[in-house]
Amino acid sequence: MNNIVNLQLRYNQFLGENQFHGQPSNLYDPMNYIMSLGGKRIRPLLSMIGNQIVNGNPNDGILIGHVMEVFHNFSLVHDDIMDKAELRRGNDTVHIKWNMPTAILSGDNMLIMAFELLHNYQGPNKKYIIDAFIQTSKEVCEGQQNDMDFENMEQVEIDHYLKMIQFKTAVLLGCSLKCGALSGNCDIETSNILYDFAVNMGMAFQMMDDYLDTFGNSESTGKIQGGDILQGKKTWLFLKSQSLFPKQHIELFSLQNDHQKAPLVIEFWKSIELDKMCLDLIESYNHKALKDLSILKENGMDCALLEELLQYLGSRTT
Amino acid sequence: MNNIVNLQLRYNQFLGENQFHGQPSNLYDPMNYIMSLGGKRIRPLLSMIGNQIVNGNPNDGILIGHVMEVFHNFSLVHDDIMDKAELRRGNDTVHIKWNMPTAILSGDNMLIMAFELLHNYQGPNKKYIIDAFIQTSKEVCEGQQNDMDFENMEQVEIDHYLKMIQFKTAVLLGCSLKCGALSGNCDIETSNILYDFAVNMGMAFQMMDDYLDTFGNSESTGKIQGGDILQGKKTWLFLKSQSLFPKQHIELFSLQNDHQKAPLVIEFWKSIELDKMCLDLIESYNHKALKDLSILKENGMDCALLEELLQYLGSRTT
Repeated sequence: MNNIVNLQLRYNQFLGENQFHGQPSNLYDPMNYIMSLGGKRIRPLLSMIGNQIVNGNPNDGILIGHVMEVFHNFSLVHDDIMDKAELRRGNDTVHIKWNMPTAILSGDNMLIMAFELLHNYQGPNKKYIIDAFIQTSKEVCEGQQNDMDFENMEQVEIDHYLKMIQFKTAVLLGCSLKCGALSGNCDIETSNILYDFAVNMGMAFQMMDDYLDTFGNSESTGKIQGGDILQGKKTWLFLKSQSLFPKQHIELFSLQNDHQKAPLVIEFWKSIELDKMCLDLIESYNHKALKDLSILKENGMDCALLEELLQYLGSRTT
Repeated sequence: MNNIVNLQLRYNQFLGENQFHGQPSNLYDPMNYIMSLGGKRIRPLLSMIGNQIVNGNPNDGILIGHVMEVFHNFSLVHDDIMDKAELRRGNDTVHIKWNMPTAILSGDNMLIMAFELLHNYQGPNKKYIIDAFIQTSKEVCEGQQNDMDFENMEQVEIDHYLKMIQFKTAVLLGCSLKCGALSGNCDIETSNILYDFAVNMGMAFQMMDDYLDTFGNSESTGKIQGGDILQGKKTWLFLKSQSLFPKQHIELFSLQNDHQKAPLVIEFWKSIELDKMCLDLIESYNHKALKDLSILKENGMDCALLEELLQYLGSRTT
């Protein structure tokens, strides 16, 4: 775990030394504000690890990681407007602390500056890195639009849902690891296996989010158990229960009493072993990720840091 | 004028053949919708002209022009949200026709795809073109934020106002012409003179907008005379009158009766010759633009198309 924590520290130090500068301050302050709110810094971590395991120049890896973190934070600023979210990591979202127009605009400027950072990158594989980043950026937008479309649809296919969360979340993790490795002069084929590994890890991570929201211990998650249920959010659990037991599903979700609803839905889902099915699906993604690692190890790559990361992300209960 | 019209036709044909393709349609349809609403296509025109006057490959010029038009339309989609505008060229704005989240997201995707087009560009001076485009993109955001900041300020310096409209509007015209010329293998020094020319032309164009809104013939502009006055918009006319005659300015803008207000303000502004001062300022920008052209002509460049464009844009009364 020390390695992961050290890389996180190194990135946070880099971030402190590479704040955005410019005028007017109402444009640049929100950009530095959202970047400063912390988080696990998974995307820069992935890029730095990708660069390190192929013995790249760490300066290139951290720069690529920074591009990914800037892009990620741009998407948070805009998503928070779309979702009308008021809090982000316990702090006011940008459109609450400033206002909506400023949040749109500072997000736009972050997206531009992510491309600027990439344009100024002088390490290996620049063309392939930009290819991957552009492809991923578009997929993130597509995933977010799919997510919004799904909220207005009666039925959503499970496969479409999984594709949506892959685009919305997992591909940027894949891109971060892949581009970090490319910045260390990794060959394309290996970088694609690393991409798959991080996408699978990301899918497991995202599914665990849904699982914990419903079946997690509310004391350790710090959230109300069943928050997604009360919001009627179209999670994997919701869609699976809808497709397997449509009649009971509709009955339970028609309940008006929030106090009763969440416990009853959770009880029903446990009775049909939906919790177990969800954990099985998470396990299958973890299994795929480990399989990707085994291919890399067969090719002589030292994957200790990636295993450590997988454990770090997989061991959470919150 | 035939040349200008021909280039417009050529770009519109290119646009028809280069629509955005992708899923979900709620993301890509708004992108094609805003691009299809027409307009003078000044930015692609400038890039195509820039490319043509240095005898470049027209395919490179039109591609660069397309990048500028995509970026311009991205900024329109987001600005319309910020300004709560319901109409754009007589049609519903994207956030009205679809919704605000979709407008944010399809704008984001347009910005990404502008960079994608540039990344795939294979003509001359790619690095310098991307340098100029990134610099300009940031300035456009800075100008828009300044514009919003100014609306909440009691006093705005005239110089700051002019800098704001330069960033918000004129620099993208400069960038379009400069990058078009660079795509035709123009040298950097000449491309910078072309940039200055188009920025000065853009300033004259933008100031003429303000002039016509207040002093134009409402029959030919199709707008209510004095629309900016009724909105209390901080135009050059507003700021100049505020700085020259603060007492009368405050009195007139305190009037509550809209029916009286606009004619009285216009009458006052005419009495202090603000209309003439505004035309003088426009003339000074046109003069600077012509001076830039004379330098280019001294260096042996055929500037007929640029003179034609200047006339085309300057001769309008609407």
